[in-house]
Amino acid sequence: MERRSFLKNAGAGVAAGATLITPAMAADLPTIKWRLASAFPKSLDTIYGGAEVMAKKVAEMTGGKFQIQVFAAGEIVPTPAVIDAVKDGTVEMGHATSYYYIGKDPTFALDCATPFGLNARQMMAWTLHGGGLALLREFFATYNIINIPCGNTGAQMGGWFRKEIKTVKDLDGLKFRIGGFAGQVLTKLGVVPQQIPGGDIYPALEKGTIDAAEFVGPYDDQKLGFNKVAKYYYYPGWWEGGPQLSAYVNTKSWASLPKEYQAVLEAAGFYAHTDMLAKYDAKNPAALKQLVGSGTELRPFPNEVMAACYKASMEVYAETSAKNAAFKKIYDSQKKFLDDELQWFAVAENRFDNFMQAARAASRK
Amino acid sequence: MERRSFLKNAGAGVAAGATLITPAMAADLPTIKWRLASAFPKSLDTIYGGAEVMAKKVAEMTGGKFQIQVFAAGEIVPTPAVIDAVKDGTVEMGHATSYYYIGKDPTFALDCATPFGLNARQMMAWTLHGGGLALLREFFATYNIINIPCGNTGAQMGGWFRKEIKTVKDLDGLKFRIGGFAGQVLTKLGVVPQQIPGGDIYPALEKGTIDAAEFVGPYDDQKLGFNKVAKYYYYPGWWEGGPQLSAYVNTKSWASLPKEYQAVLEAAGFYAHTDMLAKYDAKNPAALKQLVGSGTELRPFPNEVMAACYKASMEVYAETSAKNAAFKKIYDSQKKFLDDELQWFAVAENRFDNFMQAARAASRK
Repeated sequence: MERRSFLKNAGAGVAAGATLITPAMAADLPTIKWRLASAFPKSLDTIYGGAEVMAKKVAEMTGGKFQIQVFAAGEIVPTPAVIDAVKDGTVEMGHATSYYYIGKDPTFALDCATPFGLNARQMMAWTLHGGGLALLREFFATYNIINIPCGNTGAQMGGWFRKEIKTVKDLDGLKFRIGGFAGQVLTKLGVVPQQIPGGDIYPALEKGTIDAAEFVGPYDDQKLGFNKVAKYYYYPGWWEGGPQLSAYVNTKSWASLPKEYQAVLEAAGFYAHTDMLAKYDAKNPAALKQLVGSGTELRPFPNEVMAACYKASMEVYAETSAKNAAFKKIYDSQKKFLDDELQWFAVAENRFDNFMQAARAASRK
Repeated sequence: MERRSFLKNAGAGVAAGATLITPAMAADLPTIKWRLASAFPKSLDTIYGGAEVMAKKVAEMTGGKFQIQVFAAGEIVPTPAVIDAVKDGTVEMGHATSYYYIGKDPTFALDCATPFGLNARQMMAWTLHGGGLALLREFFATYNIINIPCGNTGAQMGGWFRKEIKTVKDLDGLKFRIGGFAGQVLTKLGVVPQQIPGGDIYPALEKGTIDAAEFVGPYDDQKLGFNKVAKYYYYPGWWEGGPQLSAYVNTKSWASLPKEYQAVLEAAGFYAHTDMLAKYDAKNPAALKQLVGSGTELRPFPNEVMAACYKASMEVYAETSAKNAAFKKIYDSQKKFLDDELQWFAVAENRFDNFMQAARAASRK
């Protein structure tokens, strides 16, 4: 990319209004076609769509010269193998929620969401201006990966329950489709976590093989029809207050890119990030209304249950930090940042939001 | 940009890992230098910085070929004239909070913030997936402007008060430095709004020429030293729950750009948007701690006061809608969207945030 051909195409394509200070130059930017393995099925248009939004922006910004072809989960790489496919260079890129890979290292969760962690805005503040991106990239480098934030779902729901959860005792023996960190936390309270792929949740709930299942939020959950086989829809998903998605780029592939394309790819990732959160925020309300209209009963987790889960989460953090230095380093950074954020958000942000809720409630009386 | 020179620079600058499917092509993208008039002084590095972050990203993505030179308020265009300078093509771009221009048309406020309106996340959801951007662009087109979201401060503070505000009566006769829509609302409650430039607020508060002043939030306010001349720091700034900044592009200048540069400019704006909110979220906590540590007394506006301001705001909306069709069209869209958002945010998002606050408070007992 250092070499440029100086052609004499002065003003080609440049109309009135642009201040053209030199004859147009020709940059010999390469034509590139990459493959991206998504961890999501196409049916989840919002979360899968993040990679497509990014790829489309990259193409637009490069006049179609930098093409990223997005493959759904299983088309070329199954979900659990996405991270290794990028690590090994089988594909140049992946797109996933990093907590899918905590079996390899729990540190991956800190790129996505952990129980009682940062919300979507706080996660982005930590990433961009709290030292987060540098810490995460140091960790991902050990997997030959450059991570780029590429989506957030916002706070998720707590999931679908066949019976009400009134006290901590109701968790004892509960067969709950939930994985990762939250599964470890809930085990401490007697829950028996179940690992079931998204497509198998419905029949398992219907037959009563499981008692409860968490997935995403109203827009995605409605598509899978969980409301037909479980009555109670609990909130919030305290284990994912703002789950971030990441685009993974193989470090050699990244290094091969002209600097312009690196900047384009990163900006496209951030655009897709903003776009996904906006899409969830815009689509969830209608889905929630429809679910409630069709008989779904909304329930907040009782404070007692939330408090017990919070306590158990802090234990899991302490245990994991004691065993894993990479985890501890990043978790400590997030924890300190979160405490500062909460102190500030309690003032203008939360007071504004809570007043708006009160005003809406009052106007409907 | 339709014409391309096919050169034989196969693989120039393309290292291992990239899948090169054709010889590298030379695109005759022009070298362009634009001027951007910011509505902000350089001292406000966060809000002024939004334009610089955008310009830097544009340069990176185009290998330095598309340069945007950012001028601070008054360097080439004073703040009140930024919008006309872009409209008339004196400069190709501007960067401002659109509510500065409600003297021309109150509709401008709906591109930024209005009393008891959308918060930062809801504003972006409306913009990208609630039809907002199309509505705003239709309006801005009448000013020869393409608007691109380019920053958000998050919920602002209510400002600095020399005396406590305990009841609605305390607003009567209050000389409050506040403008725009909020000024109109507060006039209904007896406030005498004062229009004073940022740099003149400190002496006016010190001398008691005014009783109170609102500016931005802890990070910006601390720089101006308001804590030394007013004891009470009220929250929230209910007239700006998520003020959005916009980059303005003259429509002829926009049309002169190759499609690649249009896409680059838009993505850079969104990047700067995300970056600014993250920067405020990361910088406000420390400033707030320092202010409180130096004797500032934090006070929430009493519910009675908030409720009276809410009622007065709805009256101003009704009056403005009755007089201005463009305003009504966009306001109605935001109002409907806001109502849906509040219904959904009350569930997972607010419950998560509020539990986190309660958990933090409990852990400090």
